Order: sequence, then C-alpha cells, then structure tokens
Amino acid sequence: MYRKVKKRIFEIIQAGKDGDIISKIFDFFIVFLILINVVTIIIETFDITPREKMIIKNIELVSVIIFTFEYIFRVWTSDLLYPELSRLKAFLKYVFSFMALIDLFAILPFYVPLLIPIDLRVLRLLRVLRLFRLLKFNRYTSAFGVIAEVFKRKSAQLISSVVVVGLLMIISSVLMYNVEHPVQPDIFKNAFSGLWWSVATFTTVGYGDIYPVTALGKVLSSVIALLGIGLVAVPTGIISAGFIELTEARKNNDKKEFCPYCGHKLD
Amino acid sequence: MYRKVKKRIFEIIQAGKDGDIISKIFDFFIVFLILINVVTIIIETFDITPREKMIIKNIELVSVIIFTFEYIFRVWTSDLLYPELSRLKAFLKYVFSFMALIDLFAILPFYVPLLIPIDLRVLRLLRVLRLFRLLKFNRYTSAFGVIAEVFKRKSAQLISSVVVVGLLMIISSVLMYNVEHPVQPDIFKNAFSGLWWSVATFTTVGYGDIYPVTALGKVLSSVIALLGIGLVAVPTGIISAGFIELTEARKNNDKKEFCPYCGHKLD
Amino acid sequence: MYRKVKKRIFEIIQAGKDGDIISKIFDFFIVFLILINVVTIIIETFDITPREKMIIKNIELVSVIIFTFEYIFRVWTSDLLYPELSRLKAFLKYVFSFMALIDLFAILPFYVPLLIPIDLRVLRLLRVLRLFRLLKFNRYTSAFGVIAEVFKRKSAQLISSVVVVGLLMIISSVLMYNVEHPVQPDIFKNAFSGLWWSVATFTTVGYGDIYPVTALGKVLSSVIALLGIGLVAVPTGIISAGFIELTEARKNNDKKEFCPYCGHKLD
Amino acid sequence: MYRKVKKRIFEIIQAGKDGDIISKIFDFFIVFLILINVVTIIIETFDITPREKMIIKNIELVSVIIFTFEYIFRVWTSDLLYPELSRLKAFLKYVFSFMALIDLFAILPFYVPLLIPIDLRVLRLLRVLRLFRLLKFNRYTSAFGVIAEVFKRKSAQLISSVVVVGLLMIISSVLMYNVEHPVQPDIFKNAFSGLWWSVATFTTVGYGDIYPVTALGKVLSSVIALLGIGLVAVPTGIISAGFIELTEARKNNDKKEFCPYCGHKLD
Repeated sequence: MYRKVKKRIFEIIQAGKDGDIISKIFDFFIVFLILINVVTIIIETFDITPREKMIIKNIELVSVIIFTFEYIFRVWTSDLLYPELSRLKAFLKYVFSFMALIDLFAILPFYVPLLIPIDLRVLRLLRVLRLFRLLKFNRYTSAFGVIAEVFKRKSAQLISSVVVVGLLMIISSVLMYNVEHPVQPDIFKNAFSGLWWSVATFTTVGYGDIYPVTALGKVLSSVIALLGIGLVAVPTGIISAGFIELTEARKNNDKKEFCPYCGHKLD
Repeated sequence: MYRKVKKRIFEIIQAGKDGDIISKIFDFFIVFLILINVVTIIIETFDITPREKMIIKNIELVSVIIFTFEYIFRVWTSDLLYPELSRLKAFLKYVFSFMALIDLFAILPFYVPLLIPIDLRVLRLLRVLRLFRLLKFNRYTSAFGVIAEVFKRKSAQLISSVVVVGLLMIISSVLMYNVEHPVQPDIFKNAFSGLWWSVATFTTVGYGDIYPVTALGKVLSSVIALLGIGLVAVPTGIISAGFIELTEARKNNDKKEFCPYCGHKLD
Repeated sequence: MYRKVKKRIFEIIQAGKDGDIISKIFDFFIVFLILINVVTIIIETFDITPREKMIIKNIELVSVIIFTFEYIFRVWTSDLLYPELSRLKAFLKYVFSFMALIDLFAILPFYVPLLIPIDLRVLRLLRVLRLFRLLKFNRYTSAFGVIAEVFKRKSAQLISSVVVVGLLMIISSVLMYNVEHPVQPDIFKNAFSGLWWSVATFTTVGYGDIYPVTALGKVLSSVIALLGIGLVAVPTGIISAGFIELTEARKNNDKKEFCPYCGHKLD
Repeated sequence: MYRKVKKRIFEIIQAGKDGDIISKIFDFFIVFLILINVVTIIIETFDITPREKMIIKNIELVSVIIFTFEYIFRVWTSDLLYPELSRLKAFLKYVFSFMALIDLFAILPFYVPLLIPIDLRVLRLLRVLRLFRLLKFNRYTSAFGVIAEVFKRKSAQLISSVVVVGLLMIISSVLMYNVEHPVQPDIFKNAFSGLWWSVATFTTVGYGDIYPVTALGKVLSSVIALLGIGLVAVPTGIISAGFIELTEARKNNDKKEFCPYCGHKLD
C-alpha cells in the first residue's frame, strides 16, 4: 500500500506520460504557479498599493507551501528516479542536482528567517530560475535534445574558442587601460573598466558609455571590434558543422543494412 | 455566361499566368497603387501644404474604392480559389486568411466612420502591410519557397532556441532590475526596463540609453552579451544545416534511377 | 609594326602574365599611384600648410596625366580585349564597363573646368573607387572567384531575403514614426527618421541617437531587433550552404571517370 | 653528463609528456607565475597603498628572474627543439619565433634601464601576451588544432574578404568625411574620424560617439551597416564550410580499405 502510494505520487510529480491525466494536470498546475510567481515578482517592481502588496504576499505564501510539499515529495521519491542506485546515493544525487538546488533556494528564504534573523528576501529571485522547468515541459523536447547534443559534441572546440576570446579580452583590456587612462581617468578608472569596454566591443554591443578617444586607443579598438566578428563567425561555423554532422550521423544509422545508393546488401 | 465572366475575373485578379496580358497589367496596377499609398503615408509625415494634403486625400479615396472592388471580387471568387471546398467553407477560409484580413483592415477605416462616429484613421497604417503582396509578385518566388521550407523544416529547433532565449531574457531582466534599481532608480524603473535592457544587450543593439553601472550589474551584463553571441550562432547553425539538407534532399530526388557513384542500376 | 606596338601596349596595361616583367612593373606602378592618390586625399582632410597643399596638388596633376594616358591606351586597345566583337562594339562595351567609368570619373574633374566653369572637385573622391582595381591584382584572385561564384549561385535567395528585410524596414519605420512622433517630435521628425532608426536596429548598430521611449515603441523595437538576428542568420545560412555546395560540385567534377569510393570504372 | 643534463632540462621546460611529473609541475608553476603577473598588472591599475606596491614590485622582481632563467634555458636548448637544423639555425629560428620574442620583451624592460637611462616600463604590459602560452597548455590542444587548420585551409578566402572589407572601409570613410565634415566639423575632423566611424558601423558596434546627421550621410551609413551584415555572413560561411570539409576529409582518411557504401574492396 505504502509503496503503491509512493509510486503513484512519483508518477504524478514526474513529467506525465500520455494518458495520465492527473499527472498532466499536476504538471500544468506547477508550471502555472511558477509563471504566477514570476508575474508577481515583476509586478512588485512597479509602484503598487499596500492592498495589492498584501494579495501578492498571500499568493507567494500559498506558492511556497505548495512548492515545499512538491520538493519534499521529489526528495522522498528520489530512489524511484534512480532505481539503479542505493537509497542514500539516489537521495544525494537528487538533492545536489541543479534543478533540486534551484527548487530548494526558491523556498528556503521563507523558512530561514523563522530560525535566524537574516534577510534572505533577495534569494526569492531564484524562483525565476524555476522557469527552466518549462524546458522539460513541451513538445519540443527532441529539438532541445538535438541542440544540446550539438553543443556536447562540439564542446571542446567551443571551449577552445571561448578560451582564446577570454585571453584576447584580458590582454586588450590591460592594454586599453594603459592607453586611455591618462586621457580619460574617470572613464577608464582601472583594468575592470577596460574589461567592461572589452566585452562591449567584442560582442559589438557598444552601449557608448565607454570608448577610446586617443588615436592609439581607436586603432586598438578597431582591431578588437574586427576580431569580434570572429567571435561570432567561429562558434557559428562550429555549430553549423555540428548540426550537419549530426544529421549525417543519424542518416547513416538508418542505413546500416543496405547501401543507400545502389541497394546492394552491405557485408 | 455568368460563370465565364466570374472565371475571367478570377483569372485576372489572381497572379497572372504567362501570356495573360490583362492579368499581368492588373497585378502591376494594384502593386503600383499599393506603392503609391505607402509613398503618400510617408509624405504625410512631412510638413505639407493644405493643397498637397488635398491631393493625397484624393489619391487615397480613389485607391480605397479600387481596393474595395478588388476585395469584393476576391471574396466573390473565393470558391474558385479553393474548388475542393464547399462555397461557404471557401468563403470563410478566404475571408479569415492573413492576406484577406490585411486587405479588409486597409479599407475598413474609410467605411466605419460613415456608420459610427469613431476615428480609425490609425488603422490606415495597415495599408503598408499590403506591401507583403509584393512577395507573391516577383520572379524569386521559388527562392522564397526554399527559405520558407528551411524555416518550416527547422521550426521545432528554431522555436526551442527562441524559448531558451526568452527564458534567459526574463530571468536576466528580473535579476538586473534588482541589482541596478537601488543605484539608478530612474533608469531601471521596473522589470520592464530590465527587459528593455535585456533585449538591447542580447541582440547586441546597445542603444546606450540603459546600461548597468554597478560592478555586479556589469558582470551580469557581460555574461548576457556573451550569451547573446549564441543567440546569433545557434539559429544561424540551424538555418545553415537546413539549407544544406534541403539541397541534399533535392539532389537525391533527382537521382532515383542510377547510383551516381558506381552507375549500378537501382532496384 | 603599328599592330605590334598596339599589341605590346595592350599586354603591358593588362594584368601581366608570369614572366612579363615590364607589364608587372606597370601594374605595380599604377597601383602605387592609386595608393598615393588615396593617401593624398586622406592627408588633405587634415590641417596642412600651403606648401604641403602645393606638393599634393602637383602629385595629383602628375597622376591625372598618367591616368589619362592609361585610360586612352585602354580605350584604344579595347578591340584586343574583346576580339570576338566588332571594333565599335568592343569600344562601347569597354567604355561603359564599371571599371572604365570609374577611371573616367577619376580624371574628368580635371578637364571639365577647363571647358565650362563648374566645380567638379568633389568627383575627385571617385578616385578612391579605383582602389577596387587592387582586387584584380593579387594572388587571391581564385579565392575571390569562389566568393563571387557563391554570391552568383545564391543571388536569388539572397535578393529574396533582402526584399523581405526591405519590406519589414519600411513597415516598421512607418509604424514606429506613428508611435513615437507624438512623444519625441524632434527625434522622430518624419518617416525618414523612422527608417534611420529601423536600419540602426535591424543591423544592431544602435548608435543611440534615436530610440523609442514609449512602451509600445519599445515592444516594437524589441521585435525588430530580434528579427534583426534573422537578418544575419538567413544570409549566413545561405552563404554557408553555397560554399559547401560549391566544394561538392567541384569535387564531383573531378570524379567523372571512376567511382571515387571503390574505384570501379563508371559506365 | 652535460648532454644528459641539457636533455633533462629540455624535457622539463617543454610541455610535459604524460608521466613526467617534474615537467608537469614546472609547466604549472610557470603558468601560475604568468597568471600572478597578470593579476598584479590588473591590481596596479587600482588605487593601492605604497606597502601593496612594494609587495607587487617584489613579486615582479622574482618573476622576472625566473622568467630570465627560463628564457636562457629555452635558448640554450633550442638545438634540441629543432634537431634537424644546425645549431646556429636552430638558435636563430627559436630566438625570432613569436613566442620567444614575447618572452624576451616581457623581461627586457627590467634590464635595459640598468644599462641606458630609458623608461621601458610600458613594455612590461607585454607580459600579458605570455598568457597565450596557456593555449599550448590544456587538454583542448586538438580542438585548437582543428580551428587552426580550418583557418589555414581557408586563409586565402578569408584574406580576400578582409581585403574587400578594408577597401570598402577606406572608400566609405573618405566619402563620409566629405559628406559630414561641413556640418559636424568637430566630430568628423579628418579622414581618420571617418575611418573610426566606418569601423564602428561595419562591425555594428555603434558606440554612438560619431554618426552622420545629414540625409546623404544617413543613406551612406545605412548602406555600410547593411554591407556590414555581409562582413559577418561571408567569413562565417567560409568557416562553416571549412569545418564541414575538414570533418569530411578526416572521415575519408579513415575509410581507405573498403567502400563505405557498398562494401567493395578498394584497390
């Protein structure tokens, strides 16, 4: 009986299978609650009356209670999620998973102040991270899978290009600081200002709050901006190649038995 | 006789076949009229004399009358456009199609005020949307078809990446608001300001009207700007792969009979 | 004798074959002269003394005389450039070619004022366009050929995407003008201001001189900026596919006789 | 004995093989020292007390001494790095290699002032360039190799597109200067201001410190900004094709023995 109830609860709180209406309703309800919470966080940033503040507070209270029960149930059923592991290992693996940590930090700020007088209200913001749960919850899961696999396959090359860009950013920011600081001491205050300029230029955002005014600085900035084109071109090229190779690989998996061109049986 | 006239009108108002001179002239005339109307809408934004205003008003009046007849004819012949449907279904399908709705909204603002005293002049702007008709009307239709098919094939992956970007935008805007609001309360007024910053940074537009000034805000902004590179790289990779796969697929369709590699007859 | 001299002059002024030292020297000399002229145009924009101005003027005078002779010789030998055409046709074809027109406009501003009192000094700037001659004149000609062929093969698709972007720009600029003009009449003066905003946003340049301040305008701007990502992604995808197809096509041209995979003779 | 010691030192200072613990420790130590030096260069840009300055100076002194010994050892063992060359050639090849020159410039500023009274402190910044040593020193070396090979294979095409962009920049900057100088003489001071605008527009950085205000200037700027899209699209396309071709080429190298399609033995 106990095991049956536990298994049923597990089925409900996990992403629902086709036909399991109750599980689907639960999923929708939780996602709806997450969205409501994001909306209240957004509304709170506007000028609101005390009465509206009261309503939002109550919504948050109810949400936290529900999220708490959800979290407890997820932890409780973690051994069913990883049936191949021992109870303790499954528990630890789940509790320290990225999604579970977000779930915990989303409810913690309401309980900690009851024990110790510390203001953790800012952690409430972590509830917006629960939005990532939506990714699991739509009909594009397989498309996500393809994108994720491309990133995984090409991770070494992508990390390599990020490392090169990181080095160029550090080097250019130090050089730029030394070139511009004497002329604009208030804008290029220290190497961090240089790094901020470097990011804005490499990514071609160019807010316009910081830019070189000396001739040498402009030359350096031009070089960095042009290299910034490579910052787009190289990962794009890597990712393009990844998508095409993946399609090839899948096609080849489908054609193991016969030559796809002339139909001769493959040995 | 009635059916013959109706069929001829249908032929004329639809994009003309080769050799059907009258239909071609009609098409050019309507496109010319749309362009004239767009030009008048643009001219009206400049300082013009009352006399020029009068001329524009007359041009618009004539255009609306012609567009009205065109619309009536299109609705009337909708059963010829969808011969496989019943008269009513064809009528409904056409009337609620995207292009027909634009056509209706382009002429409605001139008739509604005659019945009820309401100012719909702003809806006149919808006439610029009729410019999309030009897409149907050029020798690049097949090239458009290729681009459209790539988007259709890859829609799931493209939507997935848009969803991820959307989530990142909401999350980063809420975080940024909370980081920057205390320091720049007039710039980061509420979560919508954060969203506006988020769009400007992700897309690397960077107008410069809103940007972080705190160290934490700059770090967050740098992360978002660098992720913004992915915003370009991922859809570009998807679309590249789409174009290449489509070319492959078409080539394969052309080579059904013989193996292009060794010439063996295909079974 | 006359034909021989003409033929020799033709060989010299055309891009030199390997081993033809005089032709190579001539090519280098002309490119050097073009570069010198571009440098003088750049120097003239700085504050310079009357003496320096004098030197520049003399350099320009000598250059124009040499360019004039070069132009005359090119026109004179145009029948050798297009031996399959009649003399007159070859003459007309050359004189109205893009490069010849640039060459003419580069020297004309010095002769016209001698006949009629009109200031054509501004046309001198066209001499910078002669820099395009450098494209013909380097060891990367075949690489240029590849890029050019990709653009040619994919021209229909590229033009299609440009047409769509053009329509979106016109439509968004008219809408934006109507949204923002009432609030910022000095910034969004007329539909052209809207178009200027539209270009800055679509291309993600975002100078920061013009941007929406109303909520509706910001929403519209966000949509345009996100569509602007497509402005990069679509042509990049098209061009990527073009490069890959071209490589494939060239590979296939090389393997007409034998199956490249198993070496069996193709029937 | 001497040769054995020399060989051992060579093994230690070169990137360590698996299992050579001492060499690995040395590599880590040098990289650690480079990072420390970059951090001190960054810290020096902030307001620091004389005592902190003293500490940094000592760290730098120790680093330079170690870097000097490293440099001497590297020069000394250069004949082992290029065993196929004569001693002198190996020495010259190493000393004038890019990495060795950076290493030299990183230590020189500390020795030159001892001989002649000249302030070379600014050259110390070159020590950040030693960060490039990190590239050799990670588990992604093969991924770097792939990226580097793509750039090498496609260098002709990439250089071609850079040349075209360079020409367009020079031409547009001269034209823009002449269009905007009369209206904004303080912003578009000379052709270099035009070039600075040209870079900001082509790369879509758009800081907002310089932009056209005349109608003609805005038209020219729009054209340049739209061509700037091509600045991203063309190299991205080239690099995408490069990555895909490289994967193809490697796959083909792996399948020399049997036709992967029909299994026929390859001759």
